[in-house]
Amino acid sequence: MTVTLINSFIVPQDEEEAFLQAWRETVDHFATAPGFVQTRLHRNTGLNDTTFQYVNIALWQDVEAYRAVFRNFTPAGQRIAGVKAHPGLYEVIEEVDPRG
Amino acid sequence: MTVTLINSFIVPQDEEEAFLQAWRETVDHFATAPGFVQTRLHRNTGLNDTTFQYVNIALWQDVEAYRAVFRNFTPAGQRIAGVKAHPGLYEVIEEVDPRG
Repeated sequence: MTVTLINSFIVPQDEEEAFLQAWRETVDHFATAPGFVQTRLHRNTGLNDTTFQYVNIALWQDVEAYRAVFRNFTPAGQRIAGVKAHPGLYEVIEEVDPRG
Repeated sequence: MTVTLINSFIVPQDEEEAFLQAWRETVDHFATAPGFVQTRLHRNTGLNDTTFQYVNIALWQDVEAYRAVFRNFTPAGQRIAGVKAHPGLYEVIEEVDPRG
């Protein structure tokens, strides 16, 4: 079953550059891994709730592929002081797309 | 600019049914609104971080369209005791899609 990683990050303002660099290093680690489909990093616009400054949303072919990549690798973003990650794995249960 | 609503919900276990019904009522409210593009409700699989039981990800053509819909309507999910929403508005800043 395809799983969606939705990882919401709390990032202190003075750690944003370090966080972005670490995120890119993490992507480099898994970009060619079996089972990796796609990832998108979202930045908060500041126009509404600002609890999470960044949210990464990634698709994996299955949970085993996701776990294999991180078995021997701690995502760099989780090693920066003050950064708090919430890497949950989700399935889509409802979809509404009037133009689809 | 297209904006992505990423709304992470903390939902007490005994309120899940009420939350899902309220979410569907909320979608009914905006499904035909100008500027609404798509929405997907994700349920946590329980296989990793379980802070947020549900995450709604929606696309809107712009922030004004999103705001217009909720100007006179409090999303039903935010009126259930114990449910905590984090409705942030985001823009995509990085995308990696090896097969794209």
